[in-house]
Amino acid sequence: MKAGVLFSGGKDSALAALMLARDYDVELNTFVFDSERSMNSVVDAAESLKMPLKIRLFPDALLQRAAEEIIRDGFPNSAINMVHLEALRNIAGDYKVIGDGTRFNDRVPMLGRDEVQRLCDRYSVSYVRPLLGYMKNEIDRLAGRYLVISYGETGEIENGDYEREIRQKIRSLGREPEEYFPDMHKQSLVVGIN
Amino acid sequence: MKAGVLFSGGKDSALAALMLARDYDVELNTFVFDSERSMNSVVDAAESLKMPLKIRLFPDALLQRAAEEIIRDGFPNSAINMVHLEALRNIAGDYKVIGDGTRFNDRVPMLGRDEVQRLCDRYSVSYVRPLLGYMKNEIDRLAGRYLVISYGETGEIENGDYEREIRQKIRSLGREPEEYFPDMHKQSLVVGIN
Repeated sequence: MKAGVLFSGGKDSALAALMLARDYDVELNTFVFDSERSMNSVVDAAESLKMPLKIRLFPDALLQRAAEEIIRDGFPNSAINMVHLEALRNIAGDYKVIGDGTRFNDRVPMLGRDEVQRLCDRYSVSYVRPLLGYMKNEIDRLAGRYLVISYGETGEIENGDYEREIRQKIRSLGREPEEYFPDMHKQSLVVGIN
Repeated sequence: MKAGVLFSGGKDSALAALMLARDYDVELNTFVFDSERSMNSVVDAAESLKMPLKIRLFPDALLQRAAEEIIRDGFPNSAINMVHLEALRNIAGDYKVIGDGTRFNDRVPMLGRDEVQRLCDRYSVSYVRPLLGYMKNEIDRLAGRYLVISYGETGEIENGDYEREIRQKIRSLGREPEEYFPDMHKQSLVVGIN
């Protein structure tokens, strides 16, 4: 059974892909807003996992919509969730099983129970989140055992996180992204396997 | 790293144990209220998984407390959760990682976010639920691939589910368990591996 997994190149989605690969034929899927964006480090991360990677383009209007939603809301949660759901819906057309690296402790992106049910019903897919039942310390332990990971703040690490392009868009709209993403959170990039 | 996993002999806890055994040294733990209760089929299920099994006894007063709580509440959810949490607390003394077969679609037993955090903080354990990110159809697919399973209603299948002994206790208190457990739900027992 094939499974399409959302992949940023970071620790969580890589660990999720490794765990799913024990039961499924995993294909990695990375979304970008800008087709010109360099994805070399994500391509390298996928190669180190020895899994096929598809780089996909979000619909044109989505970046503007996400940035405007963040500026309107004053915080990014709802827009990040919307973008993540858009990615899941997009790959739901190509697979019977779709997955991601959502963890128990994540607040965003995190689909609620009803959204999950709606997604699965509407697209006739199974949505699997192998890390959902794991807390941060266990994920770090398992990731450290299986993966070689490079860490840095948003902007320093070239993974496929949605946040980087959304920040740029907010800046292009004349706002400071730091107003909306108050904490620079630690980003990770898989650079090898143990 | 050793992990203590709650095990009823049924499909979900067996699949959870199989999945955890890829990353941990799993020991199965089955709880009974009555030390005289025959656990042969659970012992056989553990042997078919080739995993060590500990049969543990709940504290004496717990069965009475659970039955009374169900009669008072008019439904079993809160008492089943209480019994499940008691089992997790009990094994938390013996392992740094504890786990169970809780699924995304389960309503009981299901610990809330705060209860999980409290459990982990108080006992300095990690609590892992490998099936939490999987919906019913995917669990059935994976269980069917790896396990040979026998199905029947509560009472017909000799697994280590808490419900059987709680039902008997409710009957011994002069009540009909059917008033509180309206739906006989399908029970499962692992009888081999594929």
